[in-house]
Amino acid sequence: MVVEYDGTAYRGWQRQRNGVSIQEILEDKISLITGKSVKVTGSGRTDAGVHAFHQVASFRTDSALPCPQLVRGLNSLLPSDIAIKTMEDVSPGFHARKDVKAKTYLYRIYNGSTPCVFLRRYTWHIVKALDLDAMKKAAVSLIGTHDFKSFTTVHTEAKSFVRTLERIEIYPQTHGLLHIEMEGDGFLRYMARVIVGTLVEVGRGKRSADDIPRILAARNRSEAGMTAPPQGLFLKEVRY
Amino acid sequence: MVVEYDGTAYRGWQRQRNGVSIQEILEDKISLITGKSVKVTGSGRTDAGVHAFHQVASFRTDSALPCPQLVRGLNSLLPSDIAIKTMEDVSPGFHARKDVKAKTYLYRIYNGSTPCVFLRRYTWHIVKALDLDAMKKAAVSLIGTHDFKSFTTVHTEAKSFVRTLERIEIYPQTHGLLHIEMEGDGFLRYMARVIVGTLVEVGRGKRSADDIPRILAARNRSEAGMTAPPQGLFLKEVRY
Repeated sequence: MVVEYDGTAYRGWQRQRNGVSIQEILEDKISLITGKSVKVTGSGRTDAGVHAFHQVASFRTDSALPCPQLVRGLNSLLPSDIAIKTMEDVSPGFHARKDVKAKTYLYRIYNGSTPCVFLRRYTWHIVKALDLDAMKKAAVSLIGTHDFKSFTTVHTEAKSFVRTLERIEIYPQTHGLLHIEMEGDGFLRYMARVIVGTLVEVGRGKRSADDIPRILAARNRSEAGMTAPPQGLFLKEVRY
Repeated sequence: MVVEYDGTAYRGWQRQRNGVSIQEILEDKISLITGKSVKVTGSGRTDAGVHAFHQVASFRTDSALPCPQLVRGLNSLLPSDIAIKTMEDVSPGFHARKDVKAKTYLYRIYNGSTPCVFLRRYTWHIVKALDLDAMKKAAVSLIGTHDFKSFTTVHTEAKSFVRTLERIEIYPQTHGLLHIEMEGDGFLRYMARVIVGTLVEVGRGKRSADDIPRILAARNRSEAGMTAPPQGLFLKEVRY
């Protein structure tokens, strides 16, 4: 199924003890409809406050309900900040996380002098002007296959830090919005947000676009920029 | 000053006993900065749950603070769902309500089969298909100077129900969004929402586009359609 959610009120995708997660809500509602406890597997975690236009998740059920009916039933039970967009039967061998080929994340920045009340939950508000040319130049150095250890948290269980970033696009929208879209074969924890935070520091003139190769080579989190806040980040696509 | 607000959490523009209003919050924060109790006059009320991109409001102060500093100070004190966009000095004779020449309202409908979590606070979600041609035809009959008594609540203190609607435009956007934009010299209580509710009943085939002249002539609220929900409505412009 394809799940859309507003992450504002949640502790992230993954079920956990402190606070409500999207996975937990989905499992509870599906169990309620099918009458059996169920485990939902997502394409990957999203952190607290991060949104999804298109999270992919799967579950195993022997319920005879056809998908369209399950979708209608679920959407009527789910809180208004989680919605099932589509659902289809897959082969029993499908794995929502292990079978991922590529993911696309969108990060939204609102670059304006006055706050915008309608964007506050869905953007990072930056007042100072950003040098887009410098940001684009820095982004180019991140494209390709690299060891991204400098761009993830030290609190990680990842065994390899090598990932391929196929694409980073930075494009201004109307109303002072700036979109940063990233596509890659996988993203380490916080990686999308540390990339954005580092690009913004380049855009503000705090770092040079030429610093990126050195930051990558350092394999040290403290060499990269800040972690951009979660509310600007959206999981936009998952490719299998 | 031009004020933007997300009306979700408020009982409307106007100060009242039951619940928090936008006017009250503005008066409290301006008083806090200027050190004197202040009365804020808006271009008109907006109902509970209605939003504004551009509400105009004025107040009288003998504070020596220049406008840009007042804006910065206010925005740092205001909750994140209310923002001052601009502020300028006006002549003492200016009246934010009485001097209004025209107002523009935008109503947003999300016409899609599945719920959209990011639009839920800012649209009316309608699942069934709408006949846009019929809606546009009905809208044309509303343009002009009419007695709009059928399109307001019976609980009103208005003396005259004659208003001039200069423009109604219905245009589909991307992602299943439908925008209905209305401009007029004044709007009676609930008038924008009853117009939208009636147009939607035409779009659903519950009424004919040819019914509008009869509804106007009846001067009876029960002849018009339902009141569209507040969260789709935005005060978009006020002209002086």
